[in-house]
Amino acid sequence: MAALLETEQENADSFFASAPPLQDRELITSDAQKFVSRRLQLEPEDKTSNPRARVVCVTSGGTTVPLERRCVRFIDNFSSGHRGAASTEYFLKAGYAVIFINRRGSAQPFCRSLPEDPLLTCFEPDDKGAIRPTATHAATVQRAIKEHHLAIKAGNLLNLQYTTLFEYIQILQIVSIAMNPLRQNGMFYLAAAVSDFYVPWNSMVEHKIQSRTGPLAMELAQVPKMLTLLRQLWAPLAFCVSFKLETDTEILIKKAQQALKRYRMHAVVANELQTRKQKVIVVTDRGETIVERDESHTDVEIPLVDFLINQQTSYINASAE
Amino acid sequence: MAALLETEQENADSFFASAPPLQDRELITSDAQKFVSRRLQLEPEDKTSNPRARVVCVTSGGTTVPLERRCVRFIDNFSSGHRGAASTEYFLKAGYAVIFINRRGSAQPFCRSLPEDPLLTCFEPDDKGAIRPTATHAATVQRAIKEHHLAIKAGNLLNLQYTTLFEYIQILQIVSIAMNPLRQNGMFYLAAAVSDFYVPWNSMVEHKIQSRTGPLAMELAQVPKMLTLLRQLWAPLAFCVSFKLETDTEILIKKAQQALKRYRMHAVVANELQTRKQKVIVVTDRGETIVERDESHTDVEIPLVDFLINQQTSYINASAE
Repeated sequence: MAALLETEQENADSFFASAPPLQDRELITSDAQKFVSRRLQLEPEDKTSNPRARVVCVTSGGTTVPLERRCVRFIDNFSSGHRGAASTEYFLKAGYAVIFINRRGSAQPFCRSLPEDPLLTCFEPDDKGAIRPTATHAATVQRAIKEHHLAIKAGNLLNLQYTTLFEYIQILQIVSIAMNPLRQNGMFYLAAAVSDFYVPWNSMVEHKIQSRTGPLAMELAQVPKMLTLLRQLWAPLAFCVSFKLETDTEILIKKAQQALKRYRMHAVVANELQTRKQKVIVVTDRGETIVERDESHTDVEIPLVDFLINQQTSYINASAE
Repeated sequence: MAALLETEQENADSFFASAPPLQDRELITSDAQKFVSRRLQLEPEDKTSNPRARVVCVTSGGTTVPLERRCVRFIDNFSSGHRGAASTEYFLKAGYAVIFINRRGSAQPFCRSLPEDPLLTCFEPDDKGAIRPTATHAATVQRAIKEHHLAIKAGNLLNLQYTTLFEYIQILQIVSIAMNPLRQNGMFYLAAAVSDFYVPWNSMVEHKIQSRTGPLAMELAQVPKMLTLLRQLWAPLAFCVSFKLETDTEILIKKAQQALKRYRMHAVVANELQTRKQKVIVVTDRGETIVERDESHTDVEIPLVDFLINQQTSYINASAE
């Protein structure tokens, strides 16, 4: 394990060394620290398990990988961010504070049921020269805005946005280190669709790739596995959940089990692209648990978040013994 | 030229044959035809040049290229869609009807100066349990919604959205053929950032590319040059403007001149990534014209659209002689 950590540390060092510096690094660091501090003060003295003392870091949406330094083209990972946004709502309802690390433009908590382009679809000019919500969408849009603002204002939701893989990993590192003092009260719920491949910044071409020279051949390097660093260095006591998405059911469970062991996750949520909104399989060291949405077709994230909260409670209780 | 057309036709045939079928093809076709018909009826009998009889097709935003059939990963072209959205506003002001073919989620006309996530940023809960625009953004957001709705309601703006390269090219073909009856009164303003490379649907892998087998090697095919077909088959009399974006100024003008000749464009707008909001160079068969925004730093699209409208007017007048 030590050897693996050393290799990953070296990979990560060269990744970070070659990554363009994160804008607003200081601001993000101090926001994350302040957000965590407020919850640390709520920790009960008897160390019993209380969701109000817990913080979950939900990551959401796909990362981009630039193919050119002055970025015109990039590789993107498909993800609407729906799962991360929905899960954030249910963690908030359960009393957790949520650090929501999300792809710019992806789904936002409480706004999932709004149409595309909600500003132009949900509002219309009224007779007095002002604007009003359209009759069809008024209730939804009002509730979305109210609940989102309430969560931010109450200090229960911190929204941090990224676009590139480089930004994502740097923000995750900052947040992990800030959450480390929460010990077992911290949870990572890593639902973002992170690229496996990238073009190292140092070997990236400066200018736009030219198109008239025939087919384009590219070779992409593997992204270092940050989960190892998160679990062993950044926030080793936090409860850690990662996600595995595959289109091929055959290999899904096997890959989820591998990830559980290799990265020492507490749970891996296995989803198949076509059925991921109806059902997921949670893989832990006790085996596989099928989690399905109920018959009234509500979100699968309701039982999923509930299941994981219970798992974290057991983990906290076991650590306190 | 005939040989080139034949080759491009063959390339295009195999591209279209391998493309996944466009959803809503019938609806898009009938919407485009109806939209054009209204303007055809406005054409003055004396054939003098009148912007109210003209339709411009503005394309805007980047296209995605799926790397897998059940799409998890794709290559994307960077483009905020700001230029296309801004230009649409100025064409509307000049009396043109605009068919705005735009990337889902990219900038929308009249909404360019709104912040990211405008719904959550521009509105807040009020004291009566409803919502209101925030003081900072009230004027901007009200104007945006009113002007956008007005343009749609008046039948001056048709909004068609795409995500993938396959959708983009099929929609452009439908719109071009629908606009053909406008003859010289049609304009194409092709500001979208279209991929040069793609993975042919037939050779695409069914499932998600696996990451644990070392670095990823990919070979991408060149996208057939649809401009040749647009100019020679789909809408041969329309005034046609394409865009060339480069990060390397050295090769920019040369590439714009090549494009002008090769695709028989009426104008090619050359932009350099770093300065594209301040200045562009319009290349026509009469030479290069530098178009810059004025000293009060308004949009460069104001003089650009103005210049191109005048060019089209000359083209219409010359055709009528």
